[in-house]
Amino acid sequence: MTHSKGIEIIRRGADEILVEEDLSRKLAKGKPLRVKAGFDPTAPDLHLGHTVVLNKMRQFQDLGHHVMFLIGDFTGMIGDPSGRNATRPPLTPEQIAENAETYKAQVFKVLDADKTEICFNSTWCNQLGASGMIRLAAKHTVARMLERDDFSKRFAEQRPISIHEFLYPLIQGYDSVAMKADVELGGTDQKFNLLVGRELQKHYGQEPQVILTMPLLVGLDGVNKMSKSLGNYVGIHDAPADMFGKLMSVSDELMWRYVELLSFESLATIAGWKREVEGGGNPRDVKVRFAQEIVARFHDRSAAARALEDFEALFRHGGVPDDLVEQLIDVPADGGSIAQVLKSSGVCSSTSEAFQMIEQGGVKVDGQKVSDKALKLAVGGPYVLQLGKRKFAKVTLRVSG
Amino acid sequence: MTHSKGIEIIRRGADEILVEEDLSRKLAKGKPLRVKAGFDPTAPDLHLGHTVVLNKMRQFQDLGHHVMFLIGDFTGMIGDPSGRNATRPPLTPEQIAENAETYKAQVFKVLDADKTEICFNSTWCNQLGASGMIRLAAKHTVARMLERDDFSKRFAEQRPISIHEFLYPLIQGYDSVAMKADVELGGTDQKFNLLVGRELQKHYGQEPQVILTMPLLVGLDGVNKMSKSLGNYVGIHDAPADMFGKLMSVSDELMWRYVELLSFESLATIAGWKREVEGGGNPRDVKVRFAQEIVARFHDRSAAARALEDFEALFRHGGVPDDLVEQLIDVPADGGSIAQVLKSSGVCSSTSEAFQMIEQGGVKVDGQKVSDKALKLAVGGPYVLQLGKRKFAKVTLRVSG
Repeated sequence: MTHSKGIEIIRRGADEILVEEDLSRKLAKGKPLRVKAGFDPTAPDLHLGHTVVLNKMRQFQDLGHHVMFLIGDFTGMIGDPSGRNATRPPLTPEQIAENAETYKAQVFKVLDADKTEICFNSTWCNQLGASGMIRLAAKHTVARMLERDDFSKRFAEQRPISIHEFLYPLIQGYDSVAMKADVELGGTDQKFNLLVGRELQKHYGQEPQVILTMPLLVGLDGVNKMSKSLGNYVGIHDAPADMFGKLMSVSDELMWRYVELLSFESLATIAGWKREVEGGGNPRDVKVRFAQEIVARFHDRSAAARALEDFEALFRHGGVPDDLVEQLIDVPADGGSIAQVLKSSGVCSSTSEAFQMIEQGGVKVDGQKVSDKALKLAVGGPYVLQLGKRKFAKVTLRVSG
Repeated sequence: MTHSKGIEIIRRGADEILVEEDLSRKLAKGKPLRVKAGFDPTAPDLHLGHTVVLNKMRQFQDLGHHVMFLIGDFTGMIGDPSGRNATRPPLTPEQIAENAETYKAQVFKVLDADKTEICFNSTWCNQLGASGMIRLAAKHTVARMLERDDFSKRFAEQRPISIHEFLYPLIQGYDSVAMKADVELGGTDQKFNLLVGRELQKHYGQEPQVILTMPLLVGLDGVNKMSKSLGNYVGIHDAPADMFGKLMSVSDELMWRYVELLSFESLATIAGWKREVEGGGNPRDVKVRFAQEIVARFHDRSAAARALEDFEALFRHGGVPDDLVEQLIDVPADGGSIAQVLKSSGVCSSTSEAFQMIEQGGVKVDGQKVSDKALKLAVGGPYVLQLGKRKFAKVTLRVSG
């Protein structure tokens, strides 16, 4: 692997590398770089958005560098000390250990377990003590901390910033000192914090780390950042068929971005795919190859193959999958309301979602579009329910009790 | 001691009591209040300015309250973590212990040793750990901290504020929590920090402390705050004659302020003195009584009596003390310049002070006022040098070498 090829792989998909000359100089030494990326220790339930940085870590591993997966358990055990944020309860050491195991189970689908060092920052942060915390705080100024976008915005809008929030970037930076990081990876939203690490390392007499930021992955909607709460995500625990179907639903333009950030195919291969599509090839074929790669990564090759088969069968046979399992659903003697039945069968998460889908014309019963929200299905069946293009259920209604 | 008389004594000389109703309520419970005052652990060399707060502590003791003398050793051991302030080197535990002993030797001239609890905040601050420090920092906001005068000024002027400086008021406040303080005393310049303690106690579910600020004592010059570097101070280690003479040099107006803040005489007695002077009495008599009290406090009654005798003898015998020791001073063969001789004899600290005093008509040689700054005294003597009213030297000049 030549040095310049290494740089090319490192640069792939990156938003920014600061400072690239530093990176070249570090690489030129010919020694494995110490590559750091930090993760929140709250219960991890990863989606493809999270894997963008993991993929970059994997690329560093493949180039022979030393990759450190840092779990920020020190602050995790503190939680949200203001108590305002219920989504950040203080974690116990047992919970941290459990979450770390959950992380491993997930991230080693991307990272090479044998080449990954898992670190916990409580190791060195607890040793700081109260006085070490004060000495650390002395290494940065209030004005410079207020330069961080979210801080300056809140300060200008007179929304409160608790003083401990100024300590967190310093802790993250101190982690780089303790880990002697040569490179730190993170999302573009982490740029300020990564730069604090660079500064602190200088204070502690270390060569400053190179920071490499990765873009935030756009969700399936092509608009917002991929996130669980927006529902525009592909979870790495999604079933093969779901994962495959979701990736096939991505627009032809967004597909290339996904390929760049998520595929492990070489840049040369991807360039070949682009030429293929530019030459009149169907983008769908590229999408299938890419979706197959991703399903195989988080499940396996045969699951990927089956997902593809089912997907194609679905569209070949007018849309209804062959293997629907019949469900028995309890309803009153006068039948089940359509919304209730959609919910009970699991194709909708709530009756209000059911009503909304009916309004949008997205609900079919036995192939017939439903427009009456008050529709009742008589006891008996079986009925084939369809929600949108890809959600199906086969149900038989019986009287409850 | 009635409750209202207690309040009157507490209020004596105070700049501000926040909130006085809280104080009344606390006093009304009839239990001894826990009274806190914090002191810097750097080598203490106290002057009367420092004793203003000590006196207030003593008054609380005399009223039966529990007085806690807090030595801020936790931050003392950190020193100035930026390393910029050479006057704040980190102290070792041994130095802290030594300084504490020096403190005791001095403050027990004012405080009742048997009723004073000496506290060290390292006791509870070290236990905080790095995570406790973060939790503490979560209890205050950046905006509110920037309300402190010196912070807001530096921020506006874009002069750096290190983040650890935001932690110090929080530590001082946390001390109040750990000590369960009912009242905290401090100089007016401490008001912001004392209020932080009040806030923090609320956060920790405690009844907030009352804060009582004492004015900064004006120095002998009647203009600036008393301070060692300005030379306008009375050190509590000053020799009896010095201490007495300095206090006698105070203006008749400033005298009343000193009496209010430094004397332990009752308010009734002082009111009597005021009537005496208003009725034509000599303020000098009040000054003598007051100066005697202070010398007796830091030395003893007999030293005070001797200081008074010497002082009166000085003025009775045309000003020249009887017991001047003759000094031999080396000069060039053509004699000694007046400024140089004044400096060598020790009555001036520098030739520039000597020139200044000559200009002001404050220098006499053998009872004759000197107006020529270039005056040379011939080899021989002895000469009696006089600077101002109270500094004398008897010198004989001889050729050096």
